[in-house]
Amino acid sequence: MTLMASLKPVHFLWEVIDRVAVIRLARPERKNPLTFESYAELRDTFRALPYAEDVDVVVLAPNGGNFCSGGDVHDIIGPLVGMDMKGLLAFTRMTGDLVKAMLHCTKPVIAAVDGVAVGAGAILAMAADLRIATPEAKCAFLFTRVGLAGCDMGACAMLPRIVGQGRAAELLYTGRTMSAEEGAAWGFWNALHPAERLEAEAMALAARLAAGPTFAHGITKTQLNQEWTMGLDQAIEAEAQAQAICMQTRDFERAYRAFVAKEKPVFEGN
Amino acid sequence: MTLMASLKPVHFLWEVIDRVAVIRLARPERKNPLTFESYAELRDTFRALPYAEDVDVVVLAPNGGNFCSGGDVHDIIGPLVGMDMKGLLAFTRMTGDLVKAMLHCTKPVIAAVDGVAVGAGAILAMAADLRIATPEAKCAFLFTRVGLAGCDMGACAMLPRIVGQGRAAELLYTGRTMSAEEGAAWGFWNALHPAERLEAEAMALAARLAAGPTFAHGITKTQLNQEWTMGLDQAIEAEAQAQAICMQTRDFERAYRAFVAKEKPVFEGN
Amino acid sequence: MTLMASLKPVHFLWEVIDRVAVIRLARPERKNPLTFESYAELRDTFRALPYAEDVDVVVLAPNGGNFCSGGDVHDIIGPLVGMDMKGLLAFTRMTGDLVKAMLHCTKPVIAAVDGVAVGAGAILAMAADLRIATPEAKCAFLFTRVGLAGCDMGACAMLPRIVGQGRAAELLYTGRTMSAEEGAAWGFWNALHPAERLEAEAMALAARLAAGPTFAHGITKTQLNQEWTMGLDQAIEAEAQAQAICMQTRDFERAYRAFVAKEKPVFEGN
Repeated sequence: MTLMASLKPVHFLWEVIDRVAVIRLARPERKNPLTFESYAELRDTFRALPYAEDVDVVVLAPNGGNFCSGGDVHDIIGPLVGMDMKGLLAFTRMTGDLVKAMLHCTKPVIAAVDGVAVGAGAILAMAADLRIATPEAKCAFLFTRVGLAGCDMGACAMLPRIVGQGRAAELLYTGRTMSAEEGAAWGFWNALHPAERLEAEAMALAARLAAGPTFAHGITKTQLNQEWTMGLDQAIEAEAQAQAICMQTRDFERAYRAFVAKEKPVFEGN
Repeated sequence: MTLMASLKPVHFLWEVIDRVAVIRLARPERKNPLTFESYAELRDTFRALPYAEDVDVVVLAPNGGNFCSGGDVHDIIGPLVGMDMKGLLAFTRMTGDLVKAMLHCTKPVIAAVDGVAVGAGAILAMAADLRIATPEAKCAFLFTRVGLAGCDMGACAMLPRIVGQGRAAELLYTGRTMSAEEGAAWGFWNALHPAERLEAEAMALAARLAAGPTFAHGITKTQLNQEWTMGLDQAIEAEAQAQAICMQTRDFERAYRAFVAKEKPVFEGN
Repeated sequence: MTLMASLKPVHFLWEVIDRVAVIRLARPERKNPLTFESYAELRDTFRALPYAEDVDVVVLAPNGGNFCSGGDVHDIIGPLVGMDMKGLLAFTRMTGDLVKAMLHCTKPVIAAVDGVAVGAGAILAMAADLRIATPEAKCAFLFTRVGLAGCDMGACAMLPRIVGQGRAAELLYTGRTMSAEEGAAWGFWNALHPAERLEAEAMALAARLAAGPTFAHGITKTQLNQEWTMGLDQAIEAEAQAQAICMQTRDFERAYRAFVAKEKPVFEGN
């Protein structure tokens, strides 16, 4: 049995509150940039989450009014300039591995974004399952502005499915900032909340999910990702199998018994 | 030659009006739940539709102010609790087979939704080609609320392509109700109409499609589903072949002759 | 080294202004229809673009207040009626090859649409990377109105990813006109501009892209198309490789040096 509440990460903040893990990137005075070290530690943490018995939901929260300013220019971009291909590919694979680890962690991830979410910070929001933000949230996939392509950590695959192919193309080709209002209208943000309410809303949503059938939530996450490129008939068969698995959980029976007894079901995630 | 106008289904209402089949689920006093029997009979009916010579379009209509309340708790969920895996998978495959039959029926399906469309009822609306609703329509993919995953009958594959990945994730993880206004803004509903106009609008849309080149409509439906996971180059080649087939229909020639004669074309579906 | 500024196409208008190629279809008195000859010449032009050293961005512009009225009824539809399958397939493949050539031309394509963009004209807009329009733009995938299916030149694959599956189905089954306001709300148009500003806005957007890291833009375009049907893990690995390539460009270094020097980077596309 793996417990993660007592985790002491070096490069980001971590706490577990009522089965909800809250992650905040460090260094708010620089709007919480990512570094080689924090990328790797986040990747390893998300990779450990499938086995964590004491965490059901993850919240990526802002720190000091900002979410994440992406890869630090001095700490990351500087060293990458001039690095050989072996080193570059090791880096881009590490950043991709963080997104893969988020997708495969089997627990819903909620991004709660205030202020800046740019570059890899925008990607972290994108790779979450649910996203809420403040009206001040500024999100930019600004890779083009540092001379790179828009295809970073899965953006060319994932962003089009969230906001539509045309809007995604604009964001990735121009690197421009998506305003909070645009992001809400386009389905990037699930909801906007005032800054003073953002974290309470994120925690309320997380608590709601943590009180649900968490085994089934894990299956929902798996299938949303797994069916990404399945044909329709394949996807329907895959869901028939996946849902049949969920019908053998005790949570399914608990829901039925509660309904018959006109009570609210108490789920236990098994 | 197969005719379906005289069909006498036992578990739902059926009529064929001017080549438009209208289906209403039964038991309006319980908001038209699905049962093992109605699932199977609907599946078999949609499986017969490709061969029906007297039906060009299907309308799924409400009954008594509601569309469908999904799998009945007493008639379906009760028996499923405790069923063995063989039985469970037989059930989830049957429900999936209904969606597959709708996708493969080669005729456009229009869902006209008033009141409740929840659980499998929401799925029936989702699996239609076109969806209209009243401002009172309440749609919820509420599987999580009965302890199950959101992956039911293709929802994790289809819903993201209709409303976007982020909004679909929220609806499937939380099971919350999507309001009619949200559904219209998100592209789930093609249009909203007042309850007293809903059926007339659905029938007018169905009549318009039935008066069109129905063979070509069948190809449109086939390709929308067939290209779901094709690469872009493959899809373009598939459409070159499919459209070349349509160019050998007499409806194509009829349209050309009507245009030259400055008349309205009269299509015959061949 | 291939230069295309001096190209003298016979069947459409062509000019290259500051590394931006501007294409206008001919015959504004008939709202710029496509013909067998212009299809073929456009296809060949887009096929040459990957090798053009003097073009970074393409703008498809209106002519005389309209964008394109699609395949000409007299010049194209008439001859197709009665053509044998070999000839029909040769035609539909040629039209599809134009879209493929646009997708594979490795440079961003911007459609600037005023007035009519219908039939194959709507497809040309759809196949662009970015789309802007005037409030008067009328876009219709009207294939059904000439007795054909909605699956023309990739529409059943591409339109659903741009505007959502439900809205695409409606446009393709009914052939109805999408208003400019709808197109903007649905993500088909990236922005609307008054007619007198449309071309200036298109050229400003093109100039912005041409001033960016154009090699990286080509990779962005490649990946947006390439990842269309990749699984998520595959797409993330593909992006790790593609972005590592971009990190070995001098544009990446230029951006870094400019940032350190607090200057604006000057990209050179290598």
